[in-house]
Parts: sequence; structure tokens; C-alpha cells
Amino acid sequence: MNGKEIAQKIHVRNLERVEVLLEKGIQPKMAFVRIGEDPASVGYQNSAIRKAERNRIECESFVYPQDTSEDAFLKAFEDLNKDPNIHGILVLRPLPDHLSYEKISQMIDLEKDVDGMSPFNIGKAFDPKINDFIPITPVSVMRMLKHYEIDVKGKDVVVVGHSLVVGRPLSMLLVDEGATVTVCHIDTKDTKSYTQKADIVITATGKKWLITKDHIKEGAVVVDVGTSYEEDGKVYGDVHFDEVEPLVSYINPVPGGIGSITSEILSERVILSASKGLKENE
Amino acid sequence: MNGKEIAQKIHVRNLERVEVLLEKGIQPKMAFVRIGEDPASVGYQNSAIRKAERNRIECESFVYPQDTSEDAFLKAFEDLNKDPNIHGILVLRPLPDHLSYEKISQMIDLEKDVDGMSPFNIGKAFDPKINDFIPITPVSVMRMLKHYEIDVKGKDVVVVGHSLVVGRPLSMLLVDEGATVTVCHIDTKDTKSYTQKADIVITATGKKWLITKDHIKEGAVVVDVGTSYEEDGKVYGDVHFDEVEPLVSYINPVPGGIGSITSEILSERVILSASKGLKENE
Repeated sequence: MNGKEIAQKIHVRNLERVEVLLEKGIQPKMAFVRIGEDPASVGYQNSAIRKAERNRIECESFVYPQDTSEDAFLKAFEDLNKDPNIHGILVLRPLPDHLSYEKISQMIDLEKDVDGMSPFNIGKAFDPKINDFIPITPVSVMRMLKHYEIDVKGKDVVVVGHSLVVGRPLSMLLVDEGATVTVCHIDTKDTKSYTQKADIVITATGKKWLITKDHIKEGAVVVDVGTSYEEDGKVYGDVHFDEVEPLVSYINPVPGGIGSITSEILSERVILSASKGLKENE
Repeated sequence: MNGKEIAQKIHVRNLERVEVLLEKGIQPKMAFVRIGEDPASVGYQNSAIRKAERNRIECESFVYPQDTSEDAFLKAFEDLNKDPNIHGILVLRPLPDHLSYEKISQMIDLEKDVDGMSPFNIGKAFDPKINDFIPITPVSVMRMLKHYEIDVKGKDVVVVGHSLVVGRPLSMLLVDEGATVTVCHIDTKDTKSYTQKADIVITATGKKWLITKDHIKEGAVVVDVGTSYEEDGKVYGDVHFDEVEPLVSYINPVPGGIGSITSEILSERVILSASKGLKENE
């Protein structure tokens, strides 16, 4: 499975939609909010901005010093919420300990929460509708399965990893489509005993080569959402690709998997959010 | 496992807390909102009111005719949201087709949403904190397991049923506590193959005797959340109790299971909600 191919398809549609917006005088705009200079955050931000700009989305960074007080930060954040020219807000993680992630995730304008950080939007994973701002990575996984016409209904699907941004909401999106879903994680006693029998294994742990050929049934579908940045400067997935690839019916490489899709969906949502303004103006 | 015993424990604490509130001049009050005369709704409402009144909670019913327009209903609902004397609102289901359940679940005041109908509160099941207004039935199941000191961490737990009010949020509460959770449902090909190996089976389908002795491993824990009202006038659980009981280490009967706990937690939440006013007044 090729994430870049799917991303390219969404990219083309994104550009068409932006064209329409620009003609109507609406410039879609996205705010990136970062506190401090965590290198991984900075790296992710730069890459996300580059991709959004390819979609002709205006990007503005709002960077606050590591020791910004909560009051000052919340006040600044409220301004972004209210700014009618900003259609999407993405808050980079991690936040410093003295700033409550919970508070911010509960105050972000739901219509601008393109990354799906609010419990409200995460909650929509329980009962998903089209264009809900559910956390992007699980939505990207579902898009990939749909692109390759892999029907999950009645299938035995194992999700490895139970993070709040991937594993948990993803498991609920799969249940909603009729999959029988098992969530495995750090406390699971024998992950292999679950994955070995699964029709579809989706892994999102960030542990290099956690999943080997011994974990996978012949002909299974394997989606690798993991990314580990190793000391050799390379990015690895959760799956030992070379070993597993000959066994399975579908698998995606890392890089070249889910990551490319998420950035395009991020742009897509900013554009959707900006298009709401369009309807109101007409 | 005895749901009534747990309910009684919560009931005693509820009364103590209400005593404190009444001394401070705060009368906890709950609104029941119903549209039309669906007999099951009316029955549930009467029973819930009786139990809340045992906790000295004032209850008021707001009943609208089946053909109430959405505009009129939403306006009336907004009044309940704003009424400072109302600390909890419970909307009885089903709603007539012309009223959007989604709209109402999104407009209910989060602080009064004691039943956990808002996607915001459902979303909290992904990352639960104490006293979150997560849907009550799954919370009651977790209370029952805790009462009997059944640790789910590392256990193989199968949830049968994937409803929005029970199975889905319950599965996430269990994952959060470190269980390896499989969600089975109507589209699962061979539910027995999952339940047979499970340390804990929790079933919430409303299908009388769906789970027999062939489904259960010796020494397992079985929680029966199902209730079916059969033509003989009796209430049945999902589990064939007489058959399964000799096999297992823990099981609850139906009636006498989760239902008794949910009503006490409903009261508990109205009291918590009323106590927030107390803090503000002091």
C-alpha cells in the first residue's frame, strides 16, 4: 500500500477546492501553536507547514517561550479562537508541564480543531460521521483501507498500541465499520497470540520492528503506523517490512505510509473549515 | 456479584452528601425530559425518579407531545440548560425521528449532562478521569469490578455488544485500565471463539441467554449487562445464569446486577453537580 499515492489524490482535490475559495476572496489559513523549542516539534511543524503551503494554505506560527504562564497562554489562545481569518489551529506537543493540555483541548474552537484534540472531537470516534474532526492518524488509516477496498466488516482486526491519538480512536472507527477488534498494548501478555490469528494487523507503537514474520498470518493485511527515529538517522516502522512483506496480501512501508496521508487530510480540513465561511458569505 | 449491595453503599453516601447540601440551602434537582408516551421510556423514567427521590433529589418531568417541533423543543431545552436550580438533565430515548438526537446531545450543558449523552462526555471514555460524566452503564460496570477487587490489567477481556452507550465506551475504560480488550458484536463471525478464552466476559446485547456454558472458560469472571423484557413478563440477562454460574469465579444475576448501580450513580452525579454550586457560594 502506497501512502504517497493516496496523498497525491487528496492533494489534487485540495488544490481544486482552494482555487474555488481564492476566487471568492477567501484565503484559507492555519495557525501552528508551539511552546518552547522541542526539536521534534519544530521538525514536525516545518514539515507540516511545507505541505500545507503546497496546498496554497497560509500558515502562521505562534511560538511562545517555554516559561509562558498559563494565563498568558490561554489568553493568547483565545485570540486565535476568535480570529475569523484563522480556519484551523494545530497545537504542537509536548506542552511544558505547567500548561494543562486538558484545558487547552477543552477550549479550542471545535470548528478550528483540525487535528482533533478536543475530547468532543475525539468522542466522535465512537459514532463517526463524514468530515468529523476525529484525530487525523486513525482517519488516515481508514482512508488507506478504503482506498485499497479492504472491507473490515466481520474481520478479525488487531490494533497494537492504545494511545489516545491513534490506537483508541482507531479501534472505535474499526468497530463502527463492523470489525471484531482487539486492542493490544504494553500490558498485553502475549501480543503474538492475537496478531497471529488476525486478518488485519494495525500497529502504532513506535517500537522499531516489534512485529516480525512470526506475528503475522499468511495473506493478512498489515498497516504500519509506527515511526521510530533511530540513531542511524533513519526512520523505521513497527513492522520488519522485508521479513513480513512476502507473507501478506497488503502492507505499507515506513516512510511512505500513513504520514503522507495525514498532512493532506490536515490541509483538507482547513479548507473545509474555510469553506464554511464561504457558505455564510453567499 | 451483587449489584444491589454496591448500590446500597452508594445510596448511603448519597444521602450523607445531600444532607450537607440541604443544610446549606441547596436542593439538588433533576430534570427528566421526555417526548411522547413510549411505554418503556415512561417506565424507566418512573423508576429513575423513585430512586432519585429516595436520595432526596427533587425531580421534575418535562414532557412534550410527540409532534413538538424541533425549534420549540430546542428552545424549551435551552431553558433547562440555563435554569440555575436544575443540576442534572436526563433525556429519555427514543426521540421521535423529526428531532435530532445529535443536536440535543451537542447542546446539553456539559455540567448537567449526568447521563453522559454529549459526544464531549462520551469522548472522555478515551481518557477517563474521576467524576467525568461518561455514560453511566459502563462506569457502573467498572465500579462493580472494583468493588470485587477484580483487576483487569493484563487480562483478556471480551466485550460482547458495541452500542454507543455501553460496549464502545466500556471497551475504552477497560483498555485504559490495562486490559487487552476484544469487542464482539452482531458482525463477529464466531463470538464463542473469543469468549471461550477470555478471563473476563462482559455482555451487553439484550439477547436473552446469548451466552451459555459453552462460551465461558472455567474460573472466568462474567458481567451481565443485558436486560430483555420477555413476553412472560420477566426480565432476562444475556447470560444463561443457572448454566454458567457453577463454572465461574464471579457472575451477577439479572435483575440485581448493573441496573441498580446505574440509578445510584445518576443520583451521585446530580449531587456532585449541585455541590459545585456549594463551592461557589462559600
